[in-house]
Amino acid sequence: MNDSNGATNEDTGDYEDYFPHSHRVFVDGPAPVPFREIHLSNGEAPLRVYDSSGPRGHDVHEGLPKLRQPWVDARKARGDTNFSQMHYAKKGVITEEMEFVAIREGVEPEFVRKEIAEGRAIIPANICHPEIEPMIIGRNFLVKINANIGNSAIFSSIEEEVEKLQWATRWGADTVMDLSTGDNIHLTRESIVRNSSVPIGTVPIYQALEKVNGVAEDLTFELFMETLREQAEQGVDYFTIHAGVLLRYVPMTAKRITGIVSRGGSIMAKWCLSHHKENFLYTRFEEICLLMKEYDVSFSLGDGLRPGCLADANDEAQFGELETLGELTKIAWKHDIQVMIEGPGHVPMHLIKENMDKQLEVCHEAPFYTLGPLTTDIAPGYDHITSGIGAAMIGWFGTAMLCYVTPKEHLGLPNKEDVKTGVITYKIAAHAADLAKGHKGAIEWDNTLSLARFQFRWADQFNLSLDPVTAKSYHDETLPADSAKTAHFCSMCGPKFCSMKITEDVREYARQQGLAEEEALKQGLEVKSQEFAKVGSKIYITDEEIEASREEV
Amino acid sequence: MNDSNGATNEDTGDYEDYFPHSHRVFVDGPAPVPFREIHLSNGEAPLRVYDSSGPRGHDVHEGLPKLRQPWVDARKARGDTNFSQMHYAKKGVITEEMEFVAIREGVEPEFVRKEIAEGRAIIPANICHPEIEPMIIGRNFLVKINANIGNSAIFSSIEEEVEKLQWATRWGADTVMDLSTGDNIHLTRESIVRNSSVPIGTVPIYQALEKVNGVAEDLTFELFMETLREQAEQGVDYFTIHAGVLLRYVPMTAKRITGIVSRGGSIMAKWCLSHHKENFLYTRFEEICLLMKEYDVSFSLGDGLRPGCLADANDEAQFGELETLGELTKIAWKHDIQVMIEGPGHVPMHLIKENMDKQLEVCHEAPFYTLGPLTTDIAPGYDHITSGIGAAMIGWFGTAMLCYVTPKEHLGLPNKEDVKTGVITYKIAAHAADLAKGHKGAIEWDNTLSLARFQFRWADQFNLSLDPVTAKSYHDETLPADSAKTAHFCSMCGPKFCSMKITEDVREYARQQGLAEEEALKQGLEVKSQEFAKVGSKIYITDEEIEASREEV
Repeated sequence: MNDSNGATNEDTGDYEDYFPHSHRVFVDGPAPVPFREIHLSNGEAPLRVYDSSGPRGHDVHEGLPKLRQPWVDARKARGDTNFSQMHYAKKGVITEEMEFVAIREGVEPEFVRKEIAEGRAIIPANICHPEIEPMIIGRNFLVKINANIGNSAIFSSIEEEVEKLQWATRWGADTVMDLSTGDNIHLTRESIVRNSSVPIGTVPIYQALEKVNGVAEDLTFELFMETLREQAEQGVDYFTIHAGVLLRYVPMTAKRITGIVSRGGSIMAKWCLSHHKENFLYTRFEEICLLMKEYDVSFSLGDGLRPGCLADANDEAQFGELETLGELTKIAWKHDIQVMIEGPGHVPMHLIKENMDKQLEVCHEAPFYTLGPLTTDIAPGYDHITSGIGAAMIGWFGTAMLCYVTPKEHLGLPNKEDVKTGVITYKIAAHAADLAKGHKGAIEWDNTLSLARFQFRWADQFNLSLDPVTAKSYHDETLPADSAKTAHFCSMCGPKFCSMKITEDVREYARQQGLAEEEALKQGLEVKSQEFAKVGSKIYITDEEIEASREEV
Repeated sequence: MNDSNGATNEDTGDYEDYFPHSHRVFVDGPAPVPFREIHLSNGEAPLRVYDSSGPRGHDVHEGLPKLRQPWVDARKARGDTNFSQMHYAKKGVITEEMEFVAIREGVEPEFVRKEIAEGRAIIPANICHPEIEPMIIGRNFLVKINANIGNSAIFSSIEEEVEKLQWATRWGADTVMDLSTGDNIHLTRESIVRNSSVPIGTVPIYQALEKVNGVAEDLTFELFMETLREQAEQGVDYFTIHAGVLLRYVPMTAKRITGIVSRGGSIMAKWCLSHHKENFLYTRFEEICLLMKEYDVSFSLGDGLRPGCLADANDEAQFGELETLGELTKIAWKHDIQVMIEGPGHVPMHLIKENMDKQLEVCHEAPFYTLGPLTTDIAPGYDHITSGIGAAMIGWFGTAMLCYVTPKEHLGLPNKEDVKTGVITYKIAAHAADLAKGHKGAIEWDNTLSLARFQFRWADQFNLSLDPVTAKSYHDETLPADSAKTAHFCSMCGPKFCSMKITEDVREYARQQGLAEEEALKQGLEVKSQEFAKVGSKIYITDEEIEASREEV
């Protein structure tokens, strides 16, 4: 891979304030492919990791550069009518978007094409959203995370909307869903899409409901289609559509503790009940497909009947709907529309795998996109954690994208700090899943940080972490002096109790002897013991600096 | 179960400031058995859950009442010499401690006795610590959590030491390890033990090392035994002893990224290397057993060679030591000494189950007591989360007690807020594990909270949570008015989008018709649709109150 740092005129903005000694670097591709490169001390090679933070510092009224415009224009020029990545993939065409994500993920472009052609992965990339840095969602790629924004019915300003977006992507959101409601829904979305380098998802039924003043019964298919087109033309990359909420499933929710907890699901259930008719999103699904392929909007088939508490998990309503989503997947694929499937929700640990296995089976391996799941209901205020547990597990089992949950889940609207906490918790879950799946290269990040930790390269340890500034500030609470950053011990154990220091001493001895380490250890133990006696009192410092460890059981 | 609220003169202190509408109640037993009883609104029956918070408000210079003294005195009076719970259990005797935990866990006393006799569970209960409310650690009981305290070499005051202890138990710590170092180690421990209603664990090698001024080479078995007796006489309930760090295992750590990360393990490794001799804790293990049974101190056999990063997990050093711990377990059991086994550490998700399976096999089902494990190394500052994921999973697989990790892990000393965050994260992990194991009664808590959530009983939802005050404060950030606590919607969706409200409407209709709910739903959909139209505009309020949901994908 050749770096082409000068390939764009990107203003990196305040990137290094949040990620000291990291840079956004670019690798040559159909467009420059971004990475986070973390520079290390001591002559260690820099580490390059995936980066979704996007460009900063541009004029938000102008929006981002339209990277993909030439690619899209060429397709239009030759008279294409189905712009879906799946359509090209099935025809054997490797698009620029596929090449881009191949570089980003470190795989062959042909592998990307095949995964998309077979429906196991999607590249959400509306042709009207040329600003994105293409990314892929599929279980044979890095696990992705989504953050929701758009809490307020009151439009603030373009700057503020973009700030919300950039805050989520800064910490690692791979896609963002704009769940705005209220009068300014169109303008808010426009601000977000034009400034987003990550795919944007929406739940179009929310805007449709606004158009009928919140009266679900007044929704019509025509109004819904008009809304879809409005949003598709703006460049929304995937639509959550609750087409699996069938009339016959609604009564199955009556025996639940928490009934229907999906907003979209409850709106459609209400429409079905009000008219005693089948869900129009289901009955007229093929008409929706025709629209989707004009723009290459991907389906995120919504789980309107997902469980809202542990007791309701894996019930007949949830799994009935899942089967219907599988049926719809086949229809979408007939039109070459990309599809992912939304999943729960609230599920105890022992029932999580069944969700994944069943989804793979009945939805024909279309990517799964889950909300958590939360593994207990008793900790409102900490649901990023209750759900982070389930998210990590289901990611390991095969979920391709995890929708974040913030500490405010069930309680209120997340503030900036909550969004950050949610995103970082989900980056942890996604990376833990990558590691458990043995994803190529995932462990290198952990090993690089662990070696820095062992070698007391404190600054490297901070800089390699998901949140360097917080890591450093926690360290500095106890040992603020700059000299502590080079100390060969830390505040937890102090020098006298430092296990890493001891191991280091043993290894140094082996190196000096020029022997294989293991052999040296075996042969040199007695000699080493005398060394300890001789230099020990010089290595260790005062008792007052000895502190009890959090590490020790 | 009969309540005996007046059975003790307990001052509940500030309990209700932290747990509004909860009370510590007591059930008759050999001594009053505590529970947290959560009172609900709307005529709902109160929920009773496990409580380890202990008495408050007593004179900390006098210490807690000595609940168990009469039981211990009777055993002394009849000339017993082995006071271990396992000893009694093997003889078929159900002790008062066993009766107490049977009530606490909701099982038969005979079941408790059998689990202890067969080594699958322990009741850490030094006869010199009569202040404890007995608790049990075993995989067929509720999963327990441990919090570490004692960070400072500088003794502050009895009040401050007790405050640290009470802060950890307030949030749910089932045992506390005192990892104090420094000159005042004895006095600190005395303050803690005399005021602790939960078992106290220590790592005696730390104090032994203080006695030789931090020079590991100068440690002797005699000095160690003197330290054990000093601590046993004070009432420490379990000792972490790193007797499995054998000389031949130390070289196996040379190829690791992070070598030896256990303080106790590194101290013993250093001693072994210095003298080129086998670990005296191993060679003279039976002499240690003789002391343990005089007091009924339980072994927590330390994993001195646990992995310190993902790359080092499940290696030959770790599993070699684990086999030695299994060998030592058999020796301890020969003397009827209670044993638990410490475990890792840092382990990727896909390697966690192997740890549990191997521990059960080679340690003959002695309870497992793990630190996390952390499932990734890249998030210093968030290691309560990286480890909470692993803790929940290994708890599900069979670990009996989880040692907490705070956000400051690897970085510095935890402050009060960090301790709380660590304990609550681990309560979540332990409860999620109980749920996944299908532990009798565990789901009732979740269901009670979920029903309160569905029925918009906001105060009940807060009061039922692990941290009621935080849950309420998060809610109040968005909708502070008291009226919002009775509102049939919340800030996330607003009234127009409230899915729970819709489900409630449907059910209410069924009730009015006097029909089975499902039948009603099927028959009444059309009628209901007219009701919706008629009352809808009255139920829902202004657009301005509609806010986007965090719940919705």
